[in-house]
This record gives sequence, C-alpha cells and structure tokens, in this order.
Amino acid sequence: MYNSLNDFIKARGNNKIVVVQGLGFVGSVMSLVCANALNEEYSVIGVDLPNKRGLSLIENLNNGVFPLIAEDPKISEYFQESIRKGNFYATSNIDSYKYADVIIIDINLDVDKQNTFFGQLSNYSVDLDPFVNAIKTIGDNCKENCVILVETTVPPGTCKEVVVPIIYDCLNNRNLSCNQIKIGHSYERVMPGPNYIDSIQNFYRVYSGINEESAIAIEKFLKSIIHVDKYPLTKLDNTNATEMAKVMENSFRALNIAFIIEWSRFAEESEVNLYEVIDAIRLRPTHSNMMYPGVGVGGYCLTKDALLASWARQNLLSKKGPLKQSENAINMNDQMPKFAFDYLYNYYPNLSKAKVLILGISYRGDVGDTRNSPAELLYNYLSDAGASLTCHDPYINFWEEKSLDIETDIYKHLNVSPDILILCTGHSIYKDDRIVDSLLNLKRMFIYDTIGLLTNDQIDKLLNKHTVKVLGRGDL
Amino acid sequence: MYNSLNDFIKARGNNKIVVVQGLGFVGSVMSLVCANALNEEYSVIGVDLPNKRGLSLIENLNNGVFPLIAEDPKISEYFQESIRKGNFYATSNIDSYKYADVIIIDINLDVDKQNTFFGQLSNYSVDLDPFVNAIKTIGDNCKENCVILVETTVPPGTCKEVVVPIIYDCLNNRNLSCNQIKIGHSYERVMPGPNYIDSIQNFYRVYSGINEESAIAIEKFLKSIIHVDKYPLTKLDNTNATEMAKVMENSFRALNIAFIIEWSRFAEESEVNLYEVIDAIRLRPTHSNMMYPGVGVGGYCLTKDALLASWARQNLLSKKGPLKQSENAINMNDQMPKFAFDYLYNYYPNLSKAKVLILGISYRGDVGDTRNSPAELLYNYLSDAGASLTCHDPYINFWEEKSLDIETDIYKHLNVSPDILILCTGHSIYKDDRIVDSLLNLKRMFIYDTIGLLTNDQIDKLLNKHTVKVLGRGDL
Repeated sequence: MYNSLNDFIKARGNNKIVVVQGLGFVGSVMSLVCANALNEEYSVIGVDLPNKRGLSLIENLNNGVFPLIAEDPKISEYFQESIRKGNFYATSNIDSYKYADVIIIDINLDVDKQNTFFGQLSNYSVDLDPFVNAIKTIGDNCKENCVILVETTVPPGTCKEVVVPIIYDCLNNRNLSCNQIKIGHSYERVMPGPNYIDSIQNFYRVYSGINEESAIAIEKFLKSIIHVDKYPLTKLDNTNATEMAKVMENSFRALNIAFIIEWSRFAEESEVNLYEVIDAIRLRPTHSNMMYPGVGVGGYCLTKDALLASWARQNLLSKKGPLKQSENAINMNDQMPKFAFDYLYNYYPNLSKAKVLILGISYRGDVGDTRNSPAELLYNYLSDAGASLTCHDPYINFWEEKSLDIETDIYKHLNVSPDILILCTGHSIYKDDRIVDSLLNLKRMFIYDTIGLLTNDQIDKLLNKHTVKVLGRGDL
Repeated sequence: MYNSLNDFIKARGNNKIVVVQGLGFVGSVMSLVCANALNEEYSVIGVDLPNKRGLSLIENLNNGVFPLIAEDPKISEYFQESIRKGNFYATSNIDSYKYADVIIIDINLDVDKQNTFFGQLSNYSVDLDPFVNAIKTIGDNCKENCVILVETTVPPGTCKEVVVPIIYDCLNNRNLSCNQIKIGHSYERVMPGPNYIDSIQNFYRVYSGINEESAIAIEKFLKSIIHVDKYPLTKLDNTNATEMAKVMENSFRALNIAFIIEWSRFAEESEVNLYEVIDAIRLRPTHSNMMYPGVGVGGYCLTKDALLASWARQNLLSKKGPLKQSENAINMNDQMPKFAFDYLYNYYPNLSKAKVLILGISYRGDVGDTRNSPAELLYNYLSDAGASLTCHDPYINFWEEKSLDIETDIYKHLNVSPDILILCTGHSIYKDDRIVDSLLNLKRMFIYDTIGLLTNDQIDKLLNKHTVKVLGRGDL
C-alpha cells in the first residue's frame, strides 16, 4: 500500500479524487462503493479523526483489514478489488481535502438522549459542534470548485443554515470565490447485513442541491456509483426537502414500531397471538409493512432520527413546537426492553436465583452490530435483578458496550443448562431445529422468545418439556 | 316482488335462507353478494328496524331502488340479477330469523364522540345497548342450529363476552339446546366506491369461530361468496383475535394519517413540498403506504375503530389503560379540518366578506358518502367566520348532515366567481383540465387545494392569474 498521502496522490493517474469524511458504518462501505464505481475510475481517500478509534480504523484499512464483520460477501470482494487497483487509501491527514474533486460527508451527527432507568425519554439535545468543526475543516482546505455531498443524517435545514454559511465563510476567508462550489444533500439508506453494499448501489436515492449547478453535479456523481437504471434517482426541490425525507422515513418506521407496543400488551392480556393477527392484516397491500412485536429498536438511525427532526423544527427551521407523535414514538420504543423485562418478571419473579442465557446481543439478525441494542438494556435490568447472566452471539466475540468477552459456540452455553433462555436477536442459526431439539435434552427451563422467532411447531415440541412464552402472544 | 315474508319463504324452493341484519352501507351490499353467491343458491332476507330510516330502505329495496349511489356498476348488475331471480326480500319482520340458516350481523356499533369546537376529542363512550338488543332479537327467534356470523366491527371481546352469553341465554330460555348453534366472527373490509362489490367478493378475509364447528361453518359460508382461490381465507385462533385484527388495521391507518399532520405543518413552515417528499419515500417498499397531507379523515371506520379497541381494553377485556397512541391518532385526525381552516385563515383573514365555493363534500373521492366528512367541519368553521358558502358535489344533491340542497352542475357554481375556491374531495372530475382552464376566465381568486389534487402544471397555469395554496406545501 501507500506510505503517504503524497504517494497515493501521485499514483492516481487520471482518476478523480473522492474523499469520504468519516469511516464508520456508512463511510467505510461508501468508500468501497466509490472505489468500485460503475462507470468512472475514482481514487478514494477515507478520512477520519486522529483519535484512538479513527487511527485504528485507518491502520486496519491500510493493512487490508476491513473494520466491519458483515454477512455481505460483496464487502470483501470490493475491498480486495480496491487493494488490487490501489485506489483506496485511509488517513487522518486533512490535506486530503485539497485534492478532492468530490467530498462525501459521512460523519455522525448524534443526539444526546437522557433516559430514565425505565427507558423513558426525559430529555435530549443535539450538539452541532462536531459536525460544524468537520465542515470547517472542509471549508478551510477544499478546492473552490469541488462538489460537497452531505450524506449524514442531519436536522432538516442543516445544509442551508449550517453547511452553506460555513463553507462560504471559509472560502471568503481564503479569498476564494463561492461561485464554483457545489453543495448538495443525498441521504444514504445503508442497511447493515447481508445486503450492505446493495443498500447503497442497488437502491433508490433522493438528492438535492443548493442550486441547479449543485444538483446537476450531485446527480452526475450518484449516477457513477448507483444503478440508476433500476433504481432511478429522485430530485427534490431543495436541501430542506431531502433532509426532511430522511428523518421522516425513519420517524414513520419508529412510529409504526411504537404502535405495536400497546397492541402487544393488549394481545397478551386477551389470549390473542398478535403475530397471527398481524400476518392476517399484512395481506392487505396497504398494511403489508405492519411491524411485529419485539424486544426493542436498536441501531443508529431509528433510535434518534425523529428527535433530529423535532429538534430542527424547534431550533433550526420554524422555531415551532416539537413533533410530538414522532418524539413519543422514540420514547415508547426506548421502553421496549423494560416491557420485555416486566413480562418475564411477571412469570418468573425469582430472578435473583436464576441462571439466564441471552441468545443474541446484536440489534439486528445476522449482523454483528450492538449499537443501541435492546439486549443491552434487558441485560442491565436482569443484572440489577440479580440474575446470573451469560450471553451468546455468533457474530460478536467481544461486547464493546459491556466490555464482555462472548463465547460464540452456542452449545458450550447450553451445556450449562440455564434456568431461563431468552431469544433476543433474530439470527438465522437460532431458528435451526437442531438447537431446538438440543434444548429437549436439558433440564426444564423457562424459554422466553422476545421476537417471535420460534415456529408454532417448535413451540409445541418445546412445551413437552419446558415453559415457553412469547412477547405479544397471549395464547400460550 | 313479494307481498309478505311468507310469500318469499314459500317461493324459496331448496335455497338456504340467509338473513342479513342491517341494511346500511355494508348490509345492503352484503345482501346482494349473498343473493349472487358463487356456488350456492341463497334466498336472502334483509332485515332492518321498523323506524323511518329502516322502513324507507326496505320500501326502496322492495321497489327495485337500491339505496346507495356508487360508482360500482356491479351493484346495479347484482341488484337486477337478484330481482330477476326473486331471491332477495327486505323486511322489518323479525320472524325472518326463524327461517334463517345463516344470520349475518351487519348493524352499526357506534362510538359517541364528544369533540370540542376545535375538533379535540374530549371524551367518548360506547353504548352496547342497541347491539345487545339486536343480538337478543336473534336469540329469541333463531333456529337452534343456525350459523351466526358477526360482521359488525365490535370492541374486541364482544363475541365471547356479549354475543355468546346472550344467545345461550335466549336459547336456554326457549328450552333449546346450545350445542348446535354456530357463532363466528369475520369482519368485512368494505370500501365504498368503484370497487364496492369486489371489496367483499374479491378480497382477503379473516375469520374465527367460538369453537371448531363454528369455524368450519363460517368457513364454508365464506367460501360460497368469496373468491377464496385468489383471496385465501385466514383463520385465527379465537374471536378476540379477529375482532382485534379489524380495529387494529384501522387504528394503524388512522395513526399513519395522524403522523402526517405534524409533518405537514413542518413542511409548510420549511418551504418543503411534502407530497414530493412522500413520493420519494414511498419508493421504498417498506414505506409505500405513507399517507399524503389532507383536510381530514371521514367515513365510518377510521374515525372510531381505534376507540372501540381502546374502550374494549379498558372495559371489556383486560380492564387496563387505554391504547393511548391509537386514541391520540383519532384526536389528531379529528382536528384536521381545523388545521385546514387555520391555514386558510392565515392567508385570508377577511373571511366574513368572502364568497367561498367548496368543491366536494363527500369524505372520499368518487363516492357519494358524507358520513363524518371533514368538509362538514370545514364548512362549519367557515360559516362561523361569516363566509358566504356554496358547495358542489357531483354525487350528492342533498347534503343530509347540513340539510342543504346541492347544485350538481359545477359550472353554475363557477359562474358566480367565488373569492375562494376550496378543493375538498378528490373526485376525478376536479382533476379535469377543462375545469382548471375555465378558472382562468374568472376574476382573481384564492384557490385552496386541501388534498393535493392539482398537478404542478395546473398550479403553474393557475398562478398566472390566481393565488394557489396547497395544504402540506411550503414551496408555493
């Protein structure tokens, strides 16, 4: 690989330079997609901060180790191809921006949520400073005619009210013209998991520019990395609109999850299997996306985007009241692990004497991603209740948030014969009949499926020996 | 036609007798579907109460006048066919139940909502008495082996906690056995409009029985009237589950409408065209049912079903708290006409001097149905503000709720040259370019599209002469 940014720049030939700012769950994969563009040869520089996390990401990437474990074989394929072509380089060197023809902003913009112990959202705030500093770094270094594409999920209004003024200021301070710069917004819809790359390259995109030239430049770039023949681009009028679209679609999803919470409780009280009810309703095309009961919402987006929107409405754009329903959805969803705990406690109050095995700590099935995983809160509640806890996850050997080593061989866990077995993440292996059968050889236990993973046949089998309860099912 | 119930019974030949209780928007059409069953010959008796409304329905039906004006040609076709075959008769005679092999309950079960002037839901109650009396009438008269199918949208728990005890009591009082009666629940998904009949005959159905024999009997009957090859039936475990499914699917819809309310206001404040944003989001299959901004929710189901559910949770089944989010959705939706009024008032405060023409008073496009139409509340607000109001609707010549004669020729209305033109219902004719063009010949006016009916091209044209504002669009 390359010894320095200079070496990389020298070797680029006729390639345009794309700089991706931020090498997290989006930026690292976006870098691969750009390095393997469809009809354009880019030399891609991934930039992150020179802190511990950033430097470790950079070192790994430059040594051929991709930072994410994911079930998408394309990631490794694309990474190897970029190594072969030598068109990807990671660095913390902000000189990178000087060479950039296109700068893609993929850094985080976080919400600081204050939750009570029971998950209730008591307050939250948005700190724009890190984002503002990142934009300043770009403005202080970029070429006056580069294309700046904001992919970060931002409070609606951010491009107009924050990004543009900063970039213009910086260019003015450097005695450069503001006439040639292009700034636009196009949010990613990255979905960690087996279709990680496709969630960028083979999926619909919405984009906008701060003016017509910007919109044209953004469109041209997106066409070079996305299969727009199958997934046509949608242009919106202004950056407020695309920024709103992103947080609105995630708020919609969060609300539809929150909706199920109350109905899950209602079903449990009423001898109703809510999964079956929902399957019956989902036959209607207008209702096909109704969510199922569950232990909680995790990940980076659904847990906060509605708050970004509500914050923007109150502080950035219209200075009006909050988006109450969307805020409330987050508040409800944050309490799901508590509901899941209460459900268990109701049937099994003697938790202080119980050996509990949690199957799955990732927030999503077949992904090794523990960001805001509901398993973490459930773990905490059980731990506070005095339970003796062990966890399994096939994708995670170290649980960062809890600083816990995780044994990835499920049978080693089962051999201990837990009192309570909690299914917490929908990993495919947990659906395997062999695991279910092996449970029949263990001593009587309380099996608690928090996500409706077990089939009716599996439940019938297990009920011969064990107690089985499923969140959202009042019929068991 | 027939002179008496006896004549009809005598003429039935080998046909089984189906009695439909309730001849409203569901029962009248359900009667036609049964009289035109797919693989069974039924003689169908439609029963309603001997009050003014009921007797008028009955008289009309027996005189060959179908009570509903709808855009579905199949209604008239099926009605004519039933007249030709002589297998449909309407009556208030409760002796009908004595002959019934199948009794279908299609009466209303209403929620009494108390709204403030501004639409806020301050309280509501559910009065089961009329429903209880209807069930008693059946129990006091039915054969001990008949099949009772509840299609009415009821609070979850109603079949188990209300219908079954009443029917058993009645049979016991008549010294009849309770072993042969079959009772089940299968909710309709009737949608007034151009696919009225198909919404019964060609659509998915969910059903359940109070025991296995009941479920089998209900299934057999449904198979005789629904194209189950294309739209397979879904059997649920118990009647609580099917009752819950119905109110849950309508609560889901109501919530997804309520979600858009806050975002419409946010978009209006932020120079955003929310229709475009929603179109961009709807490309995602998981978000394809996101609703559009609008003037309000009308009709019989979406405006109350969430309350039936919440009432049942509190009073009938689990005696727990309300379904807060679903209740709140109704509360939000009830205020939509007020929001629509406020939006107009903001731009046009001098309403007391204004000639206002409302286009569309039906709650739904291409249907003549004014039940709970949001146009009614908007009309009231405008009227209270002193506006001089006229209304048009191609499907309605008398507006029952307001006791108003309606001129159905739109050009007679336009010739008066209103100051304000409000598009309130999505009737196809309002999309016609000829109407838009004719507006260009009128004096300058304020055109207010509350449902996003006008295309961008039409708006551009109209803006040459008029002011145009659209609910949910901040870009105009």
